[in-house]
Amino acid sequence: MTEILIAGEWKAAVATGSFKAHNPATRAELRREFPVSSWSDCDRALDAAVEAARLLRGVSGEKLAGFLAAYADNIEARADEIVALANEETGLPVKPRLRDVELPRTTTQLRQAAAAAREGSWTQAVLDTKSNIRSHFAPIGPVVVFGPNNFPLAFNGISGGDFAAAVATGCPVIAKAHPLHPATSRALAECAVAAVKSSGLPAATVQMLYHLSNEDGLRLVADPRVGATSFTGSRVAGLHLKAAADKAGKPIYLEMSSLNPIVFLPGALRERGDALATETADSGLAAAGQFCTSPNLLFVIESPEARRLIENLVRLYSERPSGTLFSEAGLRGLARGVERLVEAGARALTTASADAGQRYCYPNTVLRVSGVTFLAKGEPLQHEAFGNATTVVVCAGVGELRAALASLEGNLTGSIYSSGTGEDDDLYDGVAEILRSKVGRLLNDKMPTGVALSPAMNHGGPYPSTGHPGFTAVGIPRSMVRFGALQCYDAVRPERLPAALQDTAPTAEMWRIIDGAWVQG
Amino acid sequence: MTEILIAGEWKAAVATGSFKAHNPATRAELRREFPVSSWSDCDRALDAAVEAARLLRGVSGEKLAGFLAAYADNIEARADEIVALANEETGLPVKPRLRDVELPRTTTQLRQAAAAAREGSWTQAVLDTKSNIRSHFAPIGPVVVFGPNNFPLAFNGISGGDFAAAVATGCPVIAKAHPLHPATSRALAECAVAAVKSSGLPAATVQMLYHLSNEDGLRLVADPRVGATSFTGSRVAGLHLKAAADKAGKPIYLEMSSLNPIVFLPGALRERGDALATETADSGLAAAGQFCTSPNLLFVIESPEARRLIENLVRLYSERPSGTLFSEAGLRGLARGVERLVEAGARALTTASADAGQRYCYPNTVLRVSGVTFLAKGEPLQHEAFGNATTVVVCAGVGELRAALASLEGNLTGSIYSSGTGEDDDLYDGVAEILRSKVGRLLNDKMPTGVALSPAMNHGGPYPSTGHPGFTAVGIPRSMVRFGALQCYDAVRPERLPAALQDTAPTAEMWRIIDGAWVQG
Repeated sequence: MTEILIAGEWKAAVATGSFKAHNPATRAELRREFPVSSWSDCDRALDAAVEAARLLRGVSGEKLAGFLAAYADNIEARADEIVALANEETGLPVKPRLRDVELPRTTTQLRQAAAAAREGSWTQAVLDTKSNIRSHFAPIGPVVVFGPNNFPLAFNGISGGDFAAAVATGCPVIAKAHPLHPATSRALAECAVAAVKSSGLPAATVQMLYHLSNEDGLRLVADPRVGATSFTGSRVAGLHLKAAADKAGKPIYLEMSSLNPIVFLPGALRERGDALATETADSGLAAAGQFCTSPNLLFVIESPEARRLIENLVRLYSERPSGTLFSEAGLRGLARGVERLVEAGARALTTASADAGQRYCYPNTVLRVSGVTFLAKGEPLQHEAFGNATTVVVCAGVGELRAALASLEGNLTGSIYSSGTGEDDDLYDGVAEILRSKVGRLLNDKMPTGVALSPAMNHGGPYPSTGHPGFTAVGIPRSMVRFGALQCYDAVRPERLPAALQDTAPTAEMWRIIDGAWVQG
Repeated sequence: MTEILIAGEWKAAVATGSFKAHNPATRAELRREFPVSSWSDCDRALDAAVEAARLLRGVSGEKLAGFLAAYADNIEARADEIVALANEETGLPVKPRLRDVELPRTTTQLRQAAAAAREGSWTQAVLDTKSNIRSHFAPIGPVVVFGPNNFPLAFNGISGGDFAAAVATGCPVIAKAHPLHPATSRALAECAVAAVKSSGLPAATVQMLYHLSNEDGLRLVADPRVGATSFTGSRVAGLHLKAAADKAGKPIYLEMSSLNPIVFLPGALRERGDALATETADSGLAAAGQFCTSPNLLFVIESPEARRLIENLVRLYSERPSGTLFSEAGLRGLARGVERLVEAGARALTTASADAGQRYCYPNTVLRVSGVTFLAKGEPLQHEAFGNATTVVVCAGVGELRAALASLEGNLTGSIYSSGTGEDDDLYDGVAEILRSKVGRLLNDKMPTGVALSPAMNHGGPYPSTGHPGFTAVGIPRSMVRFGALQCYDAVRPERLPAALQDTAPTAEMWRIIDGAWVQG
């Protein structure tokens, strides 16, 4: 049985059971056995994390940066092995996805977090020197990170964006690896442990469990020793964790579900409708649609060009091979999701069955529903069918389109495609006004997949896409503030202030607000 | 029956009942009658607020600032009348408290908010020009503000810090006035309405109800039309509202309760113990202890100086007149709170009964409890007795002191008094380390009452003093971010970007992060 990572050491779990991962491309069970941890494992990890959090308060940003950079190096040194494991456990292709996109994304995030930790501006230090009142964000305490199934490296609880942001903030992390890719998580955690050692951080800065009962998960996020939790995954699981954390008064940051609506305005379809169909299929079928920002809901106004877009989509979705899904549960969920959409009044336009072989696989699916039906059955038609299925909502006119958009739940993203000649400009304003309040990121003439690692990124949005519209999971340093507690010092003697709040900044690069103006260094 | 403020007009409430305020100094019922609103009133206000929020998205910071500044002017023009009403409804003295402290604080907050709205830096605009990804905080939507009983002007839902922050952000406010001072709220709201008109803001930017059933309050904070809620008041009410808002996925910012622990280190007591007793009595008895930051819990290590501090406190609390409490319910709550402390093992050291006359009044009370008992009975001994009662925890030694501090719930503030000669320096570090994680604001040799209107202020803290340790209710512009939703624009054409995210900043004063550096203008 594979050991769990507690306080810097690989230790036997006090297990309540065990599990093995499967290869989604063959359905074959993989050999390695992993434990389902008991509460006792959580309890050990929490105690160690509290002590690590205490020690980390005395650790410089420079030293945190050293760990993050060393970790990135270690991952690169074992890149081929890690990518092979991830490929075996997720079915995602080694190239380009894992080796050329997701692994570099992972190490880039770690290095961006290192730079932010070193530089220190994320703390938003405000100095009122006249009153001698000073405040900044300081580490919130132990952070539990629940990673999702769909990014075994870049969103992994032990190596992804939440992990990087939390550690860069000075918080120890208890990673809950996703049970669909435990061996990948194990290899990453080994890289992390080596970096913890070489950089001299407290041993329990990084800990990892592979699996928990639902009950222990709920108990974990509500534990008094926890500072905050971040979670990426399904809405059902996210809402259960949210309820448990909320009740205990514990911050929890959730990324739960999103249909990522796209509006194709008439001028854009007239201008470049065929190209837009291809663009949509490229985005919607990437990784079999298993992205948080996959376009699952398209809006058009009834017209010959709209009909042609749909025909093109049906053709492309039928022609292209269906991707491999991560698991049997994912396959069942997608099939059930599409059934629900059909029950609610959508019509499946694609008929081809997937050439699955042994893979977990579902046929690429395009559905169509009228704007009237969408307005009448908004709740079931906005139920996420996670994967390679996309619904086109055909509205009778602009009024119906606006009403349909106004009925949307909160989403991570929303896109509007418009003509380059200005003929959609009036329509754009009316549509954008409504869509803006429904999404965290508004795109123009661009697909939502591909969440750039930009400091201006918002990978967040209104409930229920996340739990709070003020936070982002991607985009360093902004994502770090989730793991900060606001701490003020009032009339505290200079020598007792943290370095970041003393008159002289700890680094020449750090930006702070001093008496009303941003000042560097 | 007094009318409610809906969509810019004074309208008859659809009332489920009525109430009258009392003069706390005489217990006399005041003549004016106010409605308890039905859900129908909330519903009207919400519909109007949604429309106002839509219109406000097109309003400049300059125009918001115009409203806030005009409102401050209007309050000053009616200052004597407003202060007289507040005095009649709360018993707080006209001078210095209401006329010289709280009213100027109120207008200062409104003008600080005006300056922040005009300047725009609160939005934290981040421009990644290379990727053309840009993001900032934008108004979250209609904000419901529940004001507390203890600051009829500076924390009033219709005029206080939350109101100012929300409007400066561009959010319409539905104020829930506190039923203990409805006529004061009415006069303030009249000033607000006049300013809405003169500045040309949407009529429903400011709305006000006087009273609601508990059920309608819970329904209000969870309503889909609400953007966010802020609440200042009791923990019981706050936690009920929190549960309702959390369940609906609606942000709620709460300021609920705080004992504001103060540690007197041995050197400080040796050096200036008598002065510290006076300082404590000054702070703890101000406004009969009815401050969020009133010092309710003092920690000392057993010594002759600690005993002398307690004797001094008993003398001062016994000698000084007992202040007027806001209401009969407040008086009952305080009496019951002190009873609970005694039941849990604290001993009341003061015996004098209050010379109440007709006032709502409770004798100034000092209690004492051992560190051992505090550790054994932490829950009941940390139950807030809101008012002029203070408990001294006498610890046998440093270890017990540290353990007692480690057992504290989250508080708004914590203070440490230490010697000026350095003899407490070692002790300080060990104590501050523990207290730091328990409070939002750490003070040195200073009482927690008097929450400066500084941009560096944190009037927030760990749960259950608030609902989230990352937000502050005082300190503009930081308090404004509570009412912002993070909105990103990805590949959006320049002319479609909001002014704050275009290449050229809308004002010369605005600070933004452009390609990694803070830039003004």
